[in-house]
Amino acid sequence: MYTKIKRLLIGRPLKSNEMHSQKLNKLKALAVLSSDALSSVAYGPEQILIVLIAAGGAALWFSLPIALGVLILLIALVLSYRQIIFAYPHGGGAYMVSKENLGVNFGLTAGGALLVDYIMTVAVSVSAGTDAITSAFPALRTHTILVAVIIVVIITLLNLRGLTDSATLLSYPVYFFVLMMLLAIGTGLFQAFTGQAVPVHPHAAVGTPVMGVGLFLLLRAFSSGCTALTGVEAISNSIASFKDPAPKNAAKTLLMMGGILAVLLSGIVYLSFLFGIHPMSDQTVLSQLGSSIFGRNIFYYLIQISTALILVLAANTGYSAFPMLAFNMASDKYMPRPFKVRGDRLGYSNGIITLGVLSIILIIIFKGNTSSLIPLYAAGVFIPFSLSQTGMIIHWIRKRPKGWIPRLCINLVGALICYLILIIFFITKFAQIWPVLIFIPLLIFTFHKVHQHYMLVAKQLRVDLSIPLRSINTTDNVIVVPVAGITKVVEQSLTYAKSLSSNVVAVYIGASPQAIEKMEKEWKKWNTGIRLVTIHSLYRSIVNPLDRFIDTIKYRADKSGATVTIVFPQFYTKKWWQSLLHNQSGVLIKASLIRHADVVIATVPFRFKE
Amino acid sequence: MYTKIKRLLIGRPLKSNEMHSQKLNKLKALAVLSSDALSSVAYGPEQILIVLIAAGGAALWFSLPIALGVLILLIALVLSYRQIIFAYPHGGGAYMVSKENLGVNFGLTAGGALLVDYIMTVAVSVSAGTDAITSAFPALRTHTILVAVIIVVIITLLNLRGLTDSATLLSYPVYFFVLMMLLAIGTGLFQAFTGQAVPVHPHAAVGTPVMGVGLFLLLRAFSSGCTALTGVEAISNSIASFKDPAPKNAAKTLLMMGGILAVLLSGIVYLSFLFGIHPMSDQTVLSQLGSSIFGRNIFYYLIQISTALILVLAANTGYSAFPMLAFNMASDKYMPRPFKVRGDRLGYSNGIITLGVLSIILIIIFKGNTSSLIPLYAAGVFIPFSLSQTGMIIHWIRKRPKGWIPRLCINLVGALICYLILIIFFITKFAQIWPVLIFIPLLIFTFHKVHQHYMLVAKQLRVDLSIPLRSINTTDNVIVVPVAGITKVVEQSLTYAKSLSSNVVAVYIGASPQAIEKMEKEWKKWNTGIRLVTIHSLYRSIVNPLDRFIDTIKYRADKSGATVTIVFPQFYTKKWWQSLLHNQSGVLIKASLIRHADVVIATVPFRFKE
Repeated sequence: MYTKIKRLLIGRPLKSNEMHSQKLNKLKALAVLSSDALSSVAYGPEQILIVLIAAGGAALWFSLPIALGVLILLIALVLSYRQIIFAYPHGGGAYMVSKENLGVNFGLTAGGALLVDYIMTVAVSVSAGTDAITSAFPALRTHTILVAVIIVVIITLLNLRGLTDSATLLSYPVYFFVLMMLLAIGTGLFQAFTGQAVPVHPHAAVGTPVMGVGLFLLLRAFSSGCTALTGVEAISNSIASFKDPAPKNAAKTLLMMGGILAVLLSGIVYLSFLFGIHPMSDQTVLSQLGSSIFGRNIFYYLIQISTALILVLAANTGYSAFPMLAFNMASDKYMPRPFKVRGDRLGYSNGIITLGVLSIILIIIFKGNTSSLIPLYAAGVFIPFSLSQTGMIIHWIRKRPKGWIPRLCINLVGALICYLILIIFFITKFAQIWPVLIFIPLLIFTFHKVHQHYMLVAKQLRVDLSIPLRSINTTDNVIVVPVAGITKVVEQSLTYAKSLSSNVVAVYIGASPQAIEKMEKEWKKWNTGIRLVTIHSLYRSIVNPLDRFIDTIKYRADKSGATVTIVFPQFYTKKWWQSLLHNQSGVLIKASLIRHADVVIATVPFRFKE
Repeated sequence: MYTKIKRLLIGRPLKSNEMHSQKLNKLKALAVLSSDALSSVAYGPEQILIVLIAAGGAALWFSLPIALGVLILLIALVLSYRQIIFAYPHGGGAYMVSKENLGVNFGLTAGGALLVDYIMTVAVSVSAGTDAITSAFPALRTHTILVAVIIVVIITLLNLRGLTDSATLLSYPVYFFVLMMLLAIGTGLFQAFTGQAVPVHPHAAVGTPVMGVGLFLLLRAFSSGCTALTGVEAISNSIASFKDPAPKNAAKTLLMMGGILAVLLSGIVYLSFLFGIHPMSDQTVLSQLGSSIFGRNIFYYLIQISTALILVLAANTGYSAFPMLAFNMASDKYMPRPFKVRGDRLGYSNGIITLGVLSIILIIIFKGNTSSLIPLYAAGVFIPFSLSQTGMIIHWIRKRPKGWIPRLCINLVGALICYLILIIFFITKFAQIWPVLIFIPLLIFTFHKVHQHYMLVAKQLRVDLSIPLRSINTTDNVIVVPVAGITKVVEQSLTYAKSLSSNVVAVYIGASPQAIEKMEKEWKKWNTGIRLVTIHSLYRSIVNPLDRFIDTIKYRADKSGATVTIVFPQFYTKKWWQSLLHNQSGVLIKASLIRHADVVIATVPFRFKE
């Protein structure tokens, strides 16, 4: 039943050697891994304008130099991540680079920040997509959380089906969005240069001095614009998902993504300026731009639809990057081992499911209104950005391969900008991003705890292959068979016990002297060759007297180094409801025994035939 | 932790030989076992008046002859249940009497009807008590269900503490109610005979002919009045709870209860007539009577409080009778065996808990408004009443002890009245009581199914003591040790397996040929003397290849009659959170194996020390 549903939802299991079929070509990889970055053009430019409008409409021209700054940063990031791909072709991105070059704790900082960030990406982008959907279908507005949760569940299932399956399906909306944006930008530029553009508001000329525009405001606007860069690191984390030659393909995909992102970003900012668009609370900048360029016709609605889709799909990038990063950290024993296991469809299912569950929890906690998480999440992204750039600087200085100096310069520029942005973030938005300072140290502490445990376990489990297996004399082993009466079940358990050892003890725990006497009499009649010990339980409990008895046996056995085995029957009835008619106290007794005593529990199945 | 909470709630466990301390003396038994019957005077008389008022105020004098009829029935029931107590001194009441004399199916009908009735008693009386409480504290009105559930939980806990503990506490409100009622009746009669009584409405003289009062109306009024008799059978079910000589004490208690019930019932009906009280929807008859006699002073409020308390405590009778009846039926193998087990405080805890849970479910289903259950529940009571009277008739005719003819006559009268009432019930209230015709056959079917299963189990478990235990040659046993690598855990499991049999096989399931090759190499280096079988799992699953391997082993072992034992380690980490870091797949594999294959699972604990 469970298996059937699973097959229906995620498809047949794949053999381990079908791995190659789960690798992505460049076009699909671009779709899967860049949806997060590309979707940020839907809100990045708007964030800049929102900050600037505080100083009045005349201040909006500052969006152009700010966008230029963002573009420079984008180029620096793309180039330096490209270098990371070649330097660390097995993936791992910021985590690996920081760990190798800056030390474990910096690696864990980068990794922890990214893991949390991917969870936030999913929650934030699905919430944003849900808002777009409920705007279109107001009837759904009372069920926002439910809609968001269903979307997360669908994306999770798609990812459990495997990368290629989801990539094929998900690449359409991504390219649809890119196409619509390019169409809008092209048409807009054509209108502007042919003088057909009708600005919503007249725009102030570039260079107009504006009262109230200080450094602080500009920095805030710049740091807000940088939210458009989140997701740039995803490709460097997921090199393993590419078809061979993986690093080369990944690098090319990264360049393609950077190119598209740069075009869309600058196009949107520039057109917004030309069309004199002011940010409004009830309509997005993209929507205003669309209606200015096309009017409210089919093209406008296609832009809206494609925007909603890309926002939802941005979540998908997290689904590729999170499990891969968790795998890398689990391989280093900083995350629980299950994150290393490949599921039926060869994806790291545990990572995928964990991401889905945690983002659903975030959505529920924030009641589907996760926009307050955006600054936190942008700040979270720039921590690994900064660390990986710094790591690369150390890398070049240490390794000094041919032509290392220009490469070092690229990373140096990237690092400087990243630190600058981090500082700006902390200065301008401290009220929103202080939780980073708490959860990152907490995460690092947890990673270390996990690591420490695995190291201790490994130490305790290590075997010296040169020492042969110890042997225990068979006769030393004690087998204890708790008996509740004389039945076929007891007969079966005793037969089994006798076949294992000549040292078998049956123990009967009676609630009254009469019951004990009766049992002893019957036992005598029965020719088992096994000694019966009877215990009178004053409190009608089986567990406590049995525990004490086994402690005594164990004490004696330990002296001779023998093991104590307790044989328990387990009933299997023919119909499920019949099992309700049997005291399942055996299960409890077993659980209590194995927890506290160092004894082996042997469970002998007894199947009722009628 | 769990144990501490349990001790706090229900007290220290009692030894089996402290049983005598849990027996009731007559005064306590009267309080515990008659609260149901006594509480019904709070609504029985009212039910009569509600039916009669349909024919106008002048028809209310008919309440006097109807009450006389109810009194006669009460006397017949008390006398015949007294005879049941002596004839069946080990308790069991209607169930036992019907089963012994009329056959199993009639016994099950009586037992089933009573079990369901006790559940309804608890739900109905707690709901009624809750209504009284929320009338006094209107702030609680929005939490009716919660209040009712809390009351049920408290009563359940009190009963889990044991009979004597709850009896001591619960007898105060019962005697308080009896005292208040006697005081009201005495004062009322004094006022009436000294001419101080001020009737609310002038009452028509006895014998006044009234238009519209037909046989149907009178029968309806009579059958409604009979709801005052529910709970009369409780003492005969619970003889075992009395101090020795139990039957004698039970019989005396029954007579006391009958006497008190008769006085209260006739007093209330007579005074209601004298004071010309009409039933009203917003005030109970008892409340009107109280304010007529005392005015709205302290005595009036004491009557109201004592009424609310007795209504809640009526539930307690069910808590004594239900577990006892369930015990009797479980002893006959018609109910699941756990109902036979005495808990820590020597009560039949499973019965007590079941009653509590089921009545909470009823309360929740009916949203705390269970008054619609009253007719159903009254009808349910008269089925066992009728059956036990009939059973006693057969009993006297069969046994014919000294002086059996007058006893026969008592039961004959009782039986006739009971059948009459059942017929009246079905004629006048069919719309409300038809579910009885569905659930009683269903219950009987279930009881038989349970019985059949236990009989089949007993047959399958029967052992011929004269046949000595079969022996299996130790060397035939096969021990399979699944190994995941070479660790201390595996070493421990292999050492254990070797100590049991010389026929040990280690099996390794690898996800890749490389892993298998590596394992085989290391195994060769390790001097274990145990054969290693390696299996390549294409789908990375452990369960399926292991299952297939064990099937092969099992097939060979079955031929020689040997058993197959699979040795699994179970990890115990030092701190609970560490167990999250270990793949608990072993648990799943074990569960899957023992379910489908006839193999013994031996669980070897491995405790991490750090």
